[in-house]
Amino acid sequence: MPAPQLDITHRLEFSAAHRLHDPALGDEANRQLYGPCNNPNGHGHNYEVEVTVRGEVPPSGMIVDLNVLALIMDEEIFAQVDHKHLNCDVPFLEGLVTTAENLCVAFWQRVQPRILALGGCRLLRVRVYECKNSYADYHGPQL
Amino acid sequence: MPAPQLDITHRLEFSAAHRLHDPALGDEANRQLYGPCNNPNGHGHNYEVEVTVRGEVPPSGMIVDLNVLALIMDEEIFAQVDHKHLNCDVPFLEGLVTTAENLCVAFWQRVQPRILALGGCRLLRVRVYECKNSYADYHGPQL
Amino acid sequence: MPAPQLDITHRLEFSAAHRLHDPALGDEANRQLYGPCNNPNGHGHNYEVEVTVRGEVPPSGMIVDLNVLALIMDEEIFAQVDHKHLNCDVPFLEGLVTTAENLCVAFWQRVQPRILALGGCRLLRVRVYECKNSYADYHGPQL
Amino acid sequence: MPAPQLDITHRLEFSAAHRLHDPALGDEANRQLYGPCNNPNGHGHNYEVEVTVRGEVPPSGMIVDLNVLALIMDEEIFAQVDHKHLNCDVPFLEGLVTTAENLCVAFWQRVQPRILALGGCRLLRVRVYECKNSYADYHGPQL
Amino acid sequence: MPAPQLDITHRLEFSAAHRLHDPALGDEANRQLYGPCNNPNGHGHNYEVEVTVRGEVPPSGMIVDLNVLALIMDEEIFAQVDHKHLNCDVPFLEGLVTTAENLCVAFWQRVQPRILALGGCRLLRVRVYECKNSYADYHGPQL
Amino acid sequence: MPAPQLDITHRLEFSAAHRLHDPALGDEANRQLYGPCNNPNGHGHNYEVEVTVRGEVPPSGMIVDLNVLALIMDEEIFAQVDHKHLNCDVPFLEGLVTTAENLCVAFWQRVQPRILALGGCRLLRVRVYECKNSYADYHGPQL
Repeated sequence: MPAPQLDITHRLEFSAAHRLHDPALGDEANRQLYGPCNNPNGHGHNYEVEVTVRGEVPPSGMIVDLNVLALIMDEEIFAQVDHKHLNCDVPFLEGLVTTAENLCVAFWQRVQPRILALGGCRLLRVRVYECKNSYADYHGPQL
Repeated sequence: MPAPQLDITHRLEFSAAHRLHDPALGDEANRQLYGPCNNPNGHGHNYEVEVTVRGEVPPSGMIVDLNVLALIMDEEIFAQVDHKHLNCDVPFLEGLVTTAENLCVAFWQRVQPRILALGGCRLLRVRVYECKNSYADYHGPQL
Repeated sequence: MPAPQLDITHRLEFSAAHRLHDPALGDEANRQLYGPCNNPNGHGHNYEVEVTVRGEVPPSGMIVDLNVLALIMDEEIFAQVDHKHLNCDVPFLEGLVTTAENLCVAFWQRVQPRILALGGCRLLRVRVYECKNSYADYHGPQL
Repeated sequence: MPAPQLDITHRLEFSAAHRLHDPALGDEANRQLYGPCNNPNGHGHNYEVEVTVRGEVPPSGMIVDLNVLALIMDEEIFAQVDHKHLNCDVPFLEGLVTTAENLCVAFWQRVQPRILALGGCRLLRVRVYECKNSYADYHGPQL
Repeated sequence: MPAPQLDITHRLEFSAAHRLHDPALGDEANRQLYGPCNNPNGHGHNYEVEVTVRGEVPPSGMIVDLNVLALIMDEEIFAQVDHKHLNCDVPFLEGLVTTAENLCVAFWQRVQPRILALGGCRLLRVRVYECKNSYADYHGPQL
Repeated sequence: MPAPQLDITHRLEFSAAHRLHDPALGDEANRQLYGPCNNPNGHGHNYEVEVTVRGEVPPSGMIVDLNVLALIMDEEIFAQVDHKHLNCDVPFLEGLVTTAENLCVAFWQRVQPRILALGGCRLLRVRVYECKNSYADYHGPQL
């Protein structure tokens, strides 16, 4: 029997400020498009990020060592965004409207090469909760 | 590079009474089939409903404006069922056994045309939690 | 050193229908007082009940055996109200408006003699969550 | 028998940016005192606020109408702080370091006169969760 | 119109001790591979297990009677592992490294024949939470 | 006006194995007293510990720096018990039956001198959740 394939997910939380604002639009257009999320001084969230990895279970029983996955997420996500303003303080988000959708894609791009380098597994999904009643999922460019 | 495709989910909660009872069956058959859920005076739940929409991310960064999605869910679901008895007070549930499965399908049918009318995205999943240890998922007729 | 005093809390969940309605008032007065909670066919909740007991820690390390406390709560609360309509199906709630406040007091009165009979501890608090954003606490008549 | 006394609690959530910074101190002193919470562009949270009211249960069964309590909290707290920067956008927080402790006291001062005006109950506690692992409680000046 | 296909999920919790240790490796190799999870006396978790079943909705409105699904999960999982040491006390886990991945597969193998025997539905997914920030998903050998 | 007094609470989680067993009793007496919690190979939990500190709010707005409180809890609790067997691996629990009650008292004794040494605040409560439906509270010897 071939080794079974499974998915393993790890979650972290971070706190950040952000503002939904598209520099390509005027102030009034931004206010209409994003409403209170366009507040000039920003607002903020306790974000939760889930990273899901798929692979075959090796003899160790671990698709990926959760401590390694946690370290990758800590270096590529948490250390970059926790206690930051997402629009101003995070180079890899520069020029992006900081919606949960765009955060998903940006986090995918940072985490994916690190996951690939592990060997034996691949990145399956990045989920970002902006609050407990709202989240975005990205399954990568292959969808 | 084509715009990435993502899924966005919004959740709401409502409180309602219901009773599992199939009018096509006799009382004793209903009691045996549904057990305590067939209690004649009904029981109730704090339901949670998640609606997931899939689409490409446009320049706004939002597959769908969460305020618009929340409004659709409020009008098509919350305003119809909150603080109601699902068997007696909700025209679009008339004649249905009010299981989580049937609620999923009924909510899908109400929400889907509103999502389609937005353009650029489609309804992917409706999830109904009856309690925190039990939920149903409907992915639409294409499954 | 005297044995330290501690509090131990156990929680259970039940699902029930109810309706806020005071038979001493007319229909219109009830509608104005209770709003949507007065819906004639009722609505419902997944309630959570916490029972807290205070006592000195004996050599067993347990103020009260949690299995015993759980059994008391099961017999005096869960078995009486789960999958019931609180206004119609529960003799000890007869004539009460079924608010969280009144449920707290009614559950206290049922649980307290059982706790007293255990010896070595006393009932400290009954908490009833109607939903996750709203709960009532009763500390007994001595408050 | 006198009417039993109980406590009723309602919770709301809001999203806001803030920065821990004491204008009476220099930049370096602020950095040392508040660490990453002093980040100049701020960070943010999904805050949760619980307001607890104590009173005797009247014939209505409700110490306070939860819709009235929710309205007071909406007007005095949510409408003032949701999707705002707590340091810049909220007049009643001006000059305060925006810790959870100071938010508790500021919310108490806004909510208390409204609760007193209801009659028959008094404000017992304001709790502010900054994140799920950290919260502050204020029981008022009488403690 | 054909009957719609849906998924229904039930969750249970259990408490168990375990130790990550591969008898095929030496002590030092185990320590390096599993770190603190290799602690000789073990550690433990409140695990959560979700079982998801897919099927067409019959006239009863229930893909599977939740009480039946709960009973299967109770007999095949809870009764075998709750308040046990997963490495020593559970015959069907003998010889396995007790990671969340391997628990998923083992639970699948126990639950699947019981689900198949019900008729009209099939096992879709087994999810195991080791803690709230980490979980594994198994979709069966067909993935 | 004197500085207001508030309470601040921080929470951490740890995973550990344990077994309820009183060496002063025989095996059969232990089995009868503790039931499945007496399983010889132990079981385990994801514990949650809350530490609450009371003090006057100083100009910094912080009764206690949450990073300092988190560090104390990390050193005195987490580093001692996480991924351990509470009965075998933790010197300060030696000879205690490892109930939530006794954990509360033991954690209080470790944390209290550290809190006192901070000045300006005092330890008010230690809470230990064994699972989400069961927790113990210790308010110290002064109760």
